[in-house]
Amino acid sequence: MTIINHFHRILHGGDYNPDQWLHIPGIIDRDFELMEQSCCNTFSVAIFSWGQIEVEEGKFDFSWLDDIFARCAESGKKLFLATPSAAKPAWLGKKYPESCKVRSDGHRDFWGKRQNNCLTSPIFREKVRQINRKLAERYANHPALGGWHISNEYNGEPCCCDLCIRKFHEFLKEKYGTLENLNKQYWSAFWGHHLTDWDQIHPLDGSMNTARLDWRRFITANTVEFFRMEIDAVREFSDAPVTTNMMGYYDPLDYWKFVPYCDFIADDCYPSWYHGETEETAVYFAMLHDLHYTMLGKPFVMMESCPGIPNYRPYVKLRRPNEFQREMLLALGHGADGTMYFQWRKGFGNCEKIHGAVVGHDGGDQTLAFKRVADYGNKLESLSGIVDSAKAPEAAVIYDWESNWALDLTNGFGGTETKKWQETARLHYRALWEKNIDLAVIDSDQPFDSYKLIVAPMLFMLKKGVAERLKRFVENGGTLVMTYLSAYVDENNACFFGGNPGGPDLRRFFGIWNEDIDGLEPSSDQTLLWNGKKYRVSDYAEYLHAEGAEVTGVYGGEFYKGSPALTVMRQGKGKAVYLAARTGLDFLSDFYGKLLEETGIRPVLEGMPTGVKASRRTAANGDAYYFLLNMTEEPQTVVLPRELREIWGTDTLRKSVEIPSRGGTVLKG
Amino acid sequence: MTIINHFHRILHGGDYNPDQWLHIPGIIDRDFELMEQSCCNTFSVAIFSWGQIEVEEGKFDFSWLDDIFARCAESGKKLFLATPSAAKPAWLGKKYPESCKVRSDGHRDFWGKRQNNCLTSPIFREKVRQINRKLAERYANHPALGGWHISNEYNGEPCCCDLCIRKFHEFLKEKYGTLENLNKQYWSAFWGHHLTDWDQIHPLDGSMNTARLDWRRFITANTVEFFRMEIDAVREFSDAPVTTNMMGYYDPLDYWKFVPYCDFIADDCYPSWYHGETEETAVYFAMLHDLHYTMLGKPFVMMESCPGIPNYRPYVKLRRPNEFQREMLLALGHGADGTMYFQWRKGFGNCEKIHGAVVGHDGGDQTLAFKRVADYGNKLESLSGIVDSAKAPEAAVIYDWESNWALDLTNGFGGTETKKWQETARLHYRALWEKNIDLAVIDSDQPFDSYKLIVAPMLFMLKKGVAERLKRFVENGGTLVMTYLSAYVDENNACFFGGNPGGPDLRRFFGIWNEDIDGLEPSSDQTLLWNGKKYRVSDYAEYLHAEGAEVTGVYGGEFYKGSPALTVMRQGKGKAVYLAARTGLDFLSDFYGKLLEETGIRPVLEGMPTGVKASRRTAANGDAYYFLLNMTEEPQTVVLPRELREIWGTDTLRKSVEIPSRGGTVLKG
Amino acid sequence: MTIINHFHRILHGGDYNPDQWLHIPGIIDRDFELMEQSCCNTFSVAIFSWGQIEVEEGKFDFSWLDDIFARCAESGKKLFLATPSAAKPAWLGKKYPESCKVRSDGHRDFWGKRQNNCLTSPIFREKVRQINRKLAERYANHPALGGWHISNEYNGEPCCCDLCIRKFHEFLKEKYGTLENLNKQYWSAFWGHHLTDWDQIHPLDGSMNTARLDWRRFITANTVEFFRMEIDAVREFSDAPVTTNMMGYYDPLDYWKFVPYCDFIADDCYPSWYHGETEETAVYFAMLHDLHYTMLGKPFVMMESCPGIPNYRPYVKLRRPNEFQREMLLALGHGADGTMYFQWRKGFGNCEKIHGAVVGHDGGDQTLAFKRVADYGNKLESLSGIVDSAKAPEAAVIYDWESNWALDLTNGFGGTETKKWQETARLHYRALWEKNIDLAVIDSDQPFDSYKLIVAPMLFMLKKGVAERLKRFVENGGTLVMTYLSAYVDENNACFFGGNPGGPDLRRFFGIWNEDIDGLEPSSDQTLLWNGKKYRVSDYAEYLHAEGAEVTGVYGGEFYKGSPALTVMRQGKGKAVYLAARTGLDFLSDFYGKLLEETGIRPVLEGMPTGVKASRRTAANGDAYYFLLNMTEEPQTVVLPRELREIWGTDTLRKSVEIPSRGGTVLKG
Repeated sequence: MTIINHFHRILHGGDYNPDQWLHIPGIIDRDFELMEQSCCNTFSVAIFSWGQIEVEEGKFDFSWLDDIFARCAESGKKLFLATPSAAKPAWLGKKYPESCKVRSDGHRDFWGKRQNNCLTSPIFREKVRQINRKLAERYANHPALGGWHISNEYNGEPCCCDLCIRKFHEFLKEKYGTLENLNKQYWSAFWGHHLTDWDQIHPLDGSMNTARLDWRRFITANTVEFFRMEIDAVREFSDAPVTTNMMGYYDPLDYWKFVPYCDFIADDCYPSWYHGETEETAVYFAMLHDLHYTMLGKPFVMMESCPGIPNYRPYVKLRRPNEFQREMLLALGHGADGTMYFQWRKGFGNCEKIHGAVVGHDGGDQTLAFKRVADYGNKLESLSGIVDSAKAPEAAVIYDWESNWALDLTNGFGGTETKKWQETARLHYRALWEKNIDLAVIDSDQPFDSYKLIVAPMLFMLKKGVAERLKRFVENGGTLVMTYLSAYVDENNACFFGGNPGGPDLRRFFGIWNEDIDGLEPSSDQTLLWNGKKYRVSDYAEYLHAEGAEVTGVYGGEFYKGSPALTVMRQGKGKAVYLAARTGLDFLSDFYGKLLEETGIRPVLEGMPTGVKASRRTAANGDAYYFLLNMTEEPQTVVLPRELREIWGTDTLRKSVEIPSRGGTVLKG
Repeated sequence: MTIINHFHRILHGGDYNPDQWLHIPGIIDRDFELMEQSCCNTFSVAIFSWGQIEVEEGKFDFSWLDDIFARCAESGKKLFLATPSAAKPAWLGKKYPESCKVRSDGHRDFWGKRQNNCLTSPIFREKVRQINRKLAERYANHPALGGWHISNEYNGEPCCCDLCIRKFHEFLKEKYGTLENLNKQYWSAFWGHHLTDWDQIHPLDGSMNTARLDWRRFITANTVEFFRMEIDAVREFSDAPVTTNMMGYYDPLDYWKFVPYCDFIADDCYPSWYHGETEETAVYFAMLHDLHYTMLGKPFVMMESCPGIPNYRPYVKLRRPNEFQREMLLALGHGADGTMYFQWRKGFGNCEKIHGAVVGHDGGDQTLAFKRVADYGNKLESLSGIVDSAKAPEAAVIYDWESNWALDLTNGFGGTETKKWQETARLHYRALWEKNIDLAVIDSDQPFDSYKLIVAPMLFMLKKGVAERLKRFVENGGTLVMTYLSAYVDENNACFFGGNPGGPDLRRFFGIWNEDIDGLEPSSDQTLLWNGKKYRVSDYAEYLHAEGAEVTGVYGGEFYKGSPALTVMRQGKGKAVYLAARTGLDFLSDFYGKLLEETGIRPVLEGMPTGVKASRRTAANGDAYYFLLNMTEEPQTVVLPRELREIWGTDTLRKSVEIPSRGGTVLKG
Repeated sequence: MTIINHFHRILHGGDYNPDQWLHIPGIIDRDFELMEQSCCNTFSVAIFSWGQIEVEEGKFDFSWLDDIFARCAESGKKLFLATPSAAKPAWLGKKYPESCKVRSDGHRDFWGKRQNNCLTSPIFREKVRQINRKLAERYANHPALGGWHISNEYNGEPCCCDLCIRKFHEFLKEKYGTLENLNKQYWSAFWGHHLTDWDQIHPLDGSMNTARLDWRRFITANTVEFFRMEIDAVREFSDAPVTTNMMGYYDPLDYWKFVPYCDFIADDCYPSWYHGETEETAVYFAMLHDLHYTMLGKPFVMMESCPGIPNYRPYVKLRRPNEFQREMLLALGHGADGTMYFQWRKGFGNCEKIHGAVVGHDGGDQTLAFKRVADYGNKLESLSGIVDSAKAPEAAVIYDWESNWALDLTNGFGGTETKKWQETARLHYRALWEKNIDLAVIDSDQPFDSYKLIVAPMLFMLKKGVAERLKRFVENGGTLVMTYLSAYVDENNACFFGGNPGGPDLRRFFGIWNEDIDGLEPSSDQTLLWNGKKYRVSDYAEYLHAEGAEVTGVYGGEFYKGSPALTVMRQGKGKAVYLAARTGLDFLSDFYGKLLEETGIRPVLEGMPTGVKASRRTAANGDAYYFLLNMTEEPQTVVLPRELREIWGTDTLRKSVEIPSRGGTVLKG
């Protein structure tokens, strides 16, 4: 299925804010000329236009938006119409202060900025429902309507008003049933924090880990509820697909909870291709793209990206040649069916006035930015075959928001800069990605069945049922890799009775007892010995006892030298691998190389030289599309394993292709 | 004209706080002995004495101050009498809480500290007016009265009380006339921040750059209004000259706005002569001195300096021999007619009890500090010829508060630590200062006519009329040097339509199009090629297109290698030079060396060795005074271009002079 | 006297929180088995159990605590029963908000966390008195009651509520009598802060050093008053000994003020034995142990320590072999009669769930932690002879909270990271400790008579009478070493009239005038020349004039090269030594080596190799116990000066002993 019904094109366009330009004659005409010139076909509109539409309470002016809709319909463009809840009008915030967030210091914020809303406030919900209905009613059947862009970058900064805190208490009542149960789960006798009334629970008590964990869950749940309310308002009139744009790994919101309500997934991606970090940056976004494909198991839209450079970077570095196309092809190759920009035209004032855009302050088509967008847009036509084509990953990496929260909120194991759960997940992902295999990124609540290999890096929390599902996965023939700092707590961030990993049952399953964990100072020279080689270990080394598992790697130093660092336990048709220490990419690369051989997972395309990365998408008709990206500063020649047709900027059968420095290409066959 | 009417001496003395010592017998007698011994002639009094004078509301005690006035009159000393608004009495703050500032978190501060006043508060203004009138009435005709020291170091930390915010709204109404106009200028449609009522404007909205810019302007305007109110109260009785002491580059207040109401300029100067930074430190203060001379085009007073070391330095380093005299001569050589100290006598308690003073806790005349002050004071008598002598700069550097604010408030180009507007201005100043030429420091609203060369480093904002005036300056034969990050925004911090620098018209004038700017990471090895040499470039490199300008320097690296980095456009009788990248002092030194030759600007004295810096003042009778300062740790011998009379510590005709390490001397001829 | 009446054992056990485990069957039975197995004999209970006892207001449930008491009585164990004021029940905090602290921003905190109490609040005091009485009444005569553990780790974070501020004003009235007197002492004329009403005094005025100093004193005084109130409530029923657990060098509370009300001293000790810092860490705690022994001149209890690793360390490093025993022997050797743990059993949830404990989450006796505790517990039996044995130090180091506060609050001399008063005291202590001598740690109000040598490192403040007492100490034959930054201020943080050190009288006594202090930048290469050697000097070098003193060390650089850096003044039978500059351990080690020879202070045991440290305790019957600790990573052989009996893990006469790496042993003889 295409993202927009019956629109068989890769979406190309971006955020369009004509309402900022109404007072300057000729701008909008010029916009539409430049859109044609750059082959843009889809735009998001009205994201921050509430005040331009509901100009005063109950008084609406749709004229400028009608005009944009009409122009798009006429020229065959599609619009993602935004619900404008991200930024309320000034009049609304001033008249209804309860619509503004109360900060953790107890102060209610003033109306400004954005996503500065109390999502619990009844009056705010009512006002959003009204404007959403107005928009839906008016444009539901417009031929230019492509879908709904619900709000914009919901954020997870809590509102601490009384309404929110009372609602949090209701959320807890629903979850725990009785205070007695909650007291047990919270281990509240610690520091004498036994609770005798629901209203005693304070979400900001740093000593009550689980209250804080539940508060984060509540923030997500309340935001999802708000999101659903927004969708419901729209759905009264319109069947067009809905989405909301996510912000990558954004920690405060568990995006998996939004997925069931999205018709397609949208994400905002702002890489910085700093010198010497090309692969790290590519991995950062490749993993995100895989996450977003995995969420609904179908193509997503890169809803925002930057044809120039985001203004908030420490170094607002000009784009190097080819780099932009490589960035776009990375998204397409990993499952995007659209690459769009924030934003179409740079505004003259306010806090993003120098954020890179398609059209600059000069207003013309002669800038590097415009020319690269136009060049890319024109080439895109050759790729329409990839629309709605699929990926088929046999390996998955678990990246679980709630588990990360639990680790974050657990006092111990050093601080965030040592825990590095996100970096660790990416490092495991990277070791696999380097092998050019197709990957999924899941959270621990997703099905495990379709994979041969599941990697659980630092899966600190085992939610209900996860241990059982992992066991079944292994018994049915899967390979599970779990690492240090996994299976320490249950879904309420409480430790397991009976030792790690995961209490007696899972201990038996892995055939190990993880007695304790050694925090390694930077000066430590601890190592892991495996397969005849010695690898550096840092930050964490768990002290394991083998209780049935095969010890395949051991420690090279300290008083526990020779004790298990890597174990394998065969269970049913599969195996459960435990990696007890933090290693570098060197080890992970060797380790996963061997593991992929054992599990029979093959690269999407053989024979890639170092520095060239390949991904694949397969159309319903069986056509395979190969995206080859050059991660180096030098041109690369790739000898192909078989003759393929190069379709990016050309249409030629190739036995080998030349990829320009920082560039990419697409092959079919 | 002398600073103090009919007082033909270089002012020497400092802040004197006898009211702290009234309870210790003999101290004040001893003070006056030590003042004689150190040739001190002028003191600032009553700066923090409100509570010592108005001992309770409406009850006044002038006895101790009368005594000081009488002693000074008797011994021929002059007093700058302070208005005491900097620190209100405790009783006032407690009785009228509205006189205290409301902080940005909405809390009203308690009465303590200093400059902790709401300058809008009617009751506070009334109380200040009363005490000022009382003081003026009593001492207006006293022979010891030298002038008025209005308040003390006004600060720009905002008060966010309702009165201030309402007044800010009035300020905006006056400026913009209509909300429609303001909305346009603020580009408020961005993030849907369209305003429909003046009271919606919040000065702290980080996303509304221009509101924040206007808020800074308002803070300055409100402080200037308060300053004028203070002056008016004094003027009801007294014609003595007024000033207020500035704090150098203090960013929150645009000091140029105070200038029209000052009879002379006063500044507080606290260098730290740390190892290896002598020239940077000298430049820091030389540029300030030039700024303060330029402000009224006449001598200023260094109102505070430290004979020891300020207590707030990370290393409270003892003064090295000669260093103190060099510091004083730096001020005199750059246009000071007085060098004064904070403070005369070290107090025993409170937060500046170890801040360097003339008289220490031992109370005697045997300290290094007292001896250096006395030695200097005695030598000063030989310099009375410089009183009211002039400087005649042919080159000016623009240092513009409002432009700096605009750049600061513009999200982008990295952060403050990358933007470094102040450091950049100083680096350009330094490259010129090293050539021993006489310099002015102006803001962009000052007249340009009298200069041959104007340097505009990072003049981010072009206020109304500035582009036209710069063009006229060039057309009339001037040389204008403008750099990267100049001419990006208008007076409301809005970008120019039509590209940089400054939109189509100024683009044509410079003959270039500045398409975009490359943010250079620290690892970048970008260079500028000029005049057969290669110079390192850092942080910023603009991507220019020559559109008529002569390209005199090009980039040495990156994909835009060979493109313009330095351009010259001849217009009328002059030329407009554009430097597109941030260079080090090496380039600037070579570049300005050549430019000064071309423009015919000569050093004030030829033949200075490296490490010796010269400045000049010229008396009405044509006598020239040359100040030669040794910036090195070794003695320096200077062969003079002609015979001159050394008058510092001697009175001898010289063909060459020996300047001690870290020292200075003065020549006449 | 034994700590617990008639209990002649070294206390071994820890914090025991059975109330967290009531819902899990079998746990408490298992606890008592494991206690036997590990030879634990004493536990602290009910520390955070208020809400588990007073389950709602006025309704009490002692059943679980009765059970623990009964089990202990039966098995011969003792209990330190805590008063539970550290953490109030949630119902109390919600019902009586005044019991919660008001933070410095004026917000009253919610009820959670711990020690989050307004200690002034009448209702809170009343509620604490009630629960304490209830506990005392019930358990006063119970055979298992060993003593009272009053509250837990009182903290010094101020409550800024109106009640506290009014009480602070009363405190000041009592201290200063009149405002006139206070104004003088505060030097309040500075910045015009003359006070005309007591209620004008704000404890947080950063510019009023002395108000802030008095505020810290008030916090301590108010906490001590609260402590006494708690004791009084208990004393109505019980004569058992009372204590409260201190937190080492914890800066906000002057622990010396608690001493008069403690029957024995208790402290919480959490070393981290990071790589390469063994001696620093040992010194850190050795000095604390000496402080705690000195406080009452008798054995103390190490009330908390960790058999594993505290969860809040940046690196939660596993214990290396032997290291744990060395840590315990360090405490015993320096005067502890008990070493106890926080905590007995690791909880499953909340913010210390991974803090090292005796029994882990696995619940068994096979962990490294449990085995090391059991091994140690069993060996402890051999040491019962040391119970109530004494130390006899001839040298003392002054560590004075109020003096440190004065220096901290004095603006100047750089910041905390340069002042380093604590590190400096420890460095002097270390230079002496390395010589294996017995040491006392005192504050300046303690008697000086019993020592031959007193070291006063950075004794910035001279409280009333201290100068006189120091003089008498010297005149009677003592050696006093005072350093830079000593004797700058009186007890109100006011400087001395007449110069440093300490004004004219003390200046004469030391025979020097300390004119000023040179703040040395890191790049400084200043040195001190002494005894034919040159030593590096950093941060501070005072500029002295000898006025009678013998100059034994001089500066090697700067313009004051050759001037005095180390002086000796003979007065009466003793000498007053002044060290004017900050040196490293190299100098201090040489310097104190010579000084100890001169003063005839001998090591407790001769012939220790580098890396082995010895301490001694002497029983009433004359038996001497020698504790030998190996500070290195290698085993060490010590040839003993005479035959001694090794009683740690053996019972053998030795002429030499082998001490394992990181280990220790105990000898008797």
